[in-house]
Amino acid sequence: MIDRAREFDDADPLAKYRDRFDLPTDVIYLDGNSLGALPRATLARLEQVIRGEWGGGLIRSWNDADWIGAARRVGGKIAPMIGAQLHEVVACDSTSVNLFKLIAAALEMRPGRKVVLSEPGNFPTDLYMIAGLERQGLGKRKLASRESIVGALDNDVALLLLTHVHYKSGDIHDMVALTKAAHDAGALVLWDLSHSCGALPVDLNAAGADFAVGCGYKYLNGGPGAPAFAFAAERHHNTMHQPLTGWFGHNAPFDFSDDYEPAAGIDRLQCGTSPILGLAALEVGVELISEIGIDRLYAKSQALSEFFLAGLADCGLDLEGVGPSNSDERGSQLSFRHPEAYAICQALIARGVIGDFRDPDILRLGFAPAYLRFVDVAEAIRHLVEVFANEEWMRPEFQTRNAVT
Amino acid sequence: MIDRAREFDDADPLAKYRDRFDLPTDVIYLDGNSLGALPRATLARLEQVIRGEWGGGLIRSWNDADWIGAARRVGGKIAPMIGAQLHEVVACDSTSVNLFKLIAAALEMRPGRKVVLSEPGNFPTDLYMIAGLERQGLGKRKLASRESIVGALDNDVALLLLTHVHYKSGDIHDMVALTKAAHDAGALVLWDLSHSCGALPVDLNAAGADFAVGCGYKYLNGGPGAPAFAFAAERHHNTMHQPLTGWFGHNAPFDFSDDYEPAAGIDRLQCGTSPILGLAALEVGVELISEIGIDRLYAKSQALSEFFLAGLADCGLDLEGVGPSNSDERGSQLSFRHPEAYAICQALIARGVIGDFRDPDILRLGFAPAYLRFVDVAEAIRHLVEVFANEEWMRPEFQTRNAVT
Repeated sequence: MIDRAREFDDADPLAKYRDRFDLPTDVIYLDGNSLGALPRATLARLEQVIRGEWGGGLIRSWNDADWIGAARRVGGKIAPMIGAQLHEVVACDSTSVNLFKLIAAALEMRPGRKVVLSEPGNFPTDLYMIAGLERQGLGKRKLASRESIVGALDNDVALLLLTHVHYKSGDIHDMVALTKAAHDAGALVLWDLSHSCGALPVDLNAAGADFAVGCGYKYLNGGPGAPAFAFAAERHHNTMHQPLTGWFGHNAPFDFSDDYEPAAGIDRLQCGTSPILGLAALEVGVELISEIGIDRLYAKSQALSEFFLAGLADCGLDLEGVGPSNSDERGSQLSFRHPEAYAICQALIARGVIGDFRDPDILRLGFAPAYLRFVDVAEAIRHLVEVFANEEWMRPEFQTRNAVT
Repeated sequence: MIDRAREFDDADPLAKYRDRFDLPTDVIYLDGNSLGALPRATLARLEQVIRGEWGGGLIRSWNDADWIGAARRVGGKIAPMIGAQLHEVVACDSTSVNLFKLIAAALEMRPGRKVVLSEPGNFPTDLYMIAGLERQGLGKRKLASRESIVGALDNDVALLLLTHVHYKSGDIHDMVALTKAAHDAGALVLWDLSHSCGALPVDLNAAGADFAVGCGYKYLNGGPGAPAFAFAAERHHNTMHQPLTGWFGHNAPFDFSDDYEPAAGIDRLQCGTSPILGLAALEVGVELISEIGIDRLYAKSQALSEFFLAGLADCGLDLEGVGPSNSDERGSQLSFRHPEAYAICQALIARGVIGDFRDPDILRLGFAPAYLRFVDVAEAIRHLVEVFANEEWMRPEFQTRNAVT
């Protein structure tokens, strides 16, 4: 298997990009879907921002280093990866906060409708952000399983809120069909692209999507807790109103007037002062992923996960897969169900193979194509086979839960 | 004057701390109240976080480097500066977003009352964040001038929202008296400490304050757009509910359950994933300011601004001061009104003296005591006198407005 992996690596047009990341030599990293790896250029860029722009330029850098344009500039670099126009995306706040803004905006745009429809098992923060609006009496959460979503789109639904690629199973929703179904029912659509953006092609405008959010620290390699992004289709720019009406979303923030007046366009989705250090790191990751190109990344991620599944079969290791077996129907990850998933994950980490565990029983392995080699996948299989051969999960040290799982 | 300044610097117990900051040699920085200077330790710390924790530790650093505890750890280091208990402060999001959380929480705690009382000319984002809740039908803004605030506290007021030190005039509100007046009227109080924290003593618990927010990038030197902080008095921890119900505010975020359940205590004020790079830089600034000590900082800032005013008088430069002439009644800044304030500010910047302009006619000079020398103040006076002697503001290049003023 390792020989075949080497052949694949030799033929891989993306192989050269691994060196653009600073990866530990003793690790096989199958968790780029949770926290993307560090681009080599990030540290130098942060040094420039910290020492040059902050330390040397001080307050002048809001103009001279275009800090004031950072949220829009980084958003504009994300836009082409998700089928958006440059002026339809802004990088700001967290995914959670951006969800709140857009759920609230959508509810106001559909007066008389209060329901936000989503699916059970969606990423927690997507579901949780509805709770705050529910408590405010402004929204009402309704959950429908994947199969019954279209049927659940009745006249009460203001917004359909779905994660494009499921964080646990890797299932891909049909963005075109579901957006159309929601619109047919008079509802708006908000797509969470956290597990899509940077991993597979997304075309929001071709699907007619209304809103989207996404994460900066997964496939965009923006660093832990990187700023997120928000998309709103141009047709909504001057009619949407989000409730986090901070000064960076004001039409003329430096007039220091007492009254809020939303900025024209996407800027009204901004709220507080832009987080410049976080945006600088995110920008480096976005530029690198953009340079490699989404189509090539997606093709390689499919090849990697297919290689993994074929390798498992060759080794006779029969794990219960979760999610689609066809790589066209899943994101850049594979998930397996096992009652000892937590301890298996810990046993793999002890061997330097870093995947992650998702409660209660899912072992999730991500194949971030920008820096993962086929030899890494082959090695991961070898370790997994050994963990199973030795039943290593039974060791007590692998059973103790960490704060973050 | 310069000789007297040198004597003061020689006798200044804080003089040695200037070297803990990385300041350009050709600049006199009178804008630490807008963006604090760069601590020398920040770059090394960020290098450690980026290369070691992110690059090397990858996802493991959520546990191993205690990223998961960063918001509380940094909050706990801010707490002693503002008279809070360690478990009453969390560092997260922006000041604006934290304002929204706490305004909304307060409105829910006072059912039947909708009014958020503030003052005209408060920092814009404080006033703007009420607008979103007003539009949602949940709050109603009322503004009363400083003199009439107590009289305006009627039975409709749910929350009194004030900035402790006024961003423009430097005026300090009487936190004890106004908190008591609000409580007597059945209202809660939310203090914005953006221009206080790190500059002068604040004792939230002695005043009986309910809530507070503050900025990380001014006197705490956390870097441009640094995470902000939020305080809630312990007595409210399990009764307050804020609407930004993200997964980092959940009682058990890594259970990945569908239903939101707020964390016990201050953690329910968190929302999305903690911004680790921003928090790391903020932590360095907070540690440094904490080491110097607020009482000493405040004493020096008073001495600096008094030295400035005495120097102006000596030079016969008669500027119209805005705000209190008594340094006990103002924050760490001085403001002056002049019809050409913008161009004067630009002329000073061209000379390397960086203050700022606040619309429409205010020249604001900050005296951040951690790194400013008396000789800097003396030099600033000399430049200001020369700008006036030459009427330099009349030059066209100083009249053109930048994007950020």
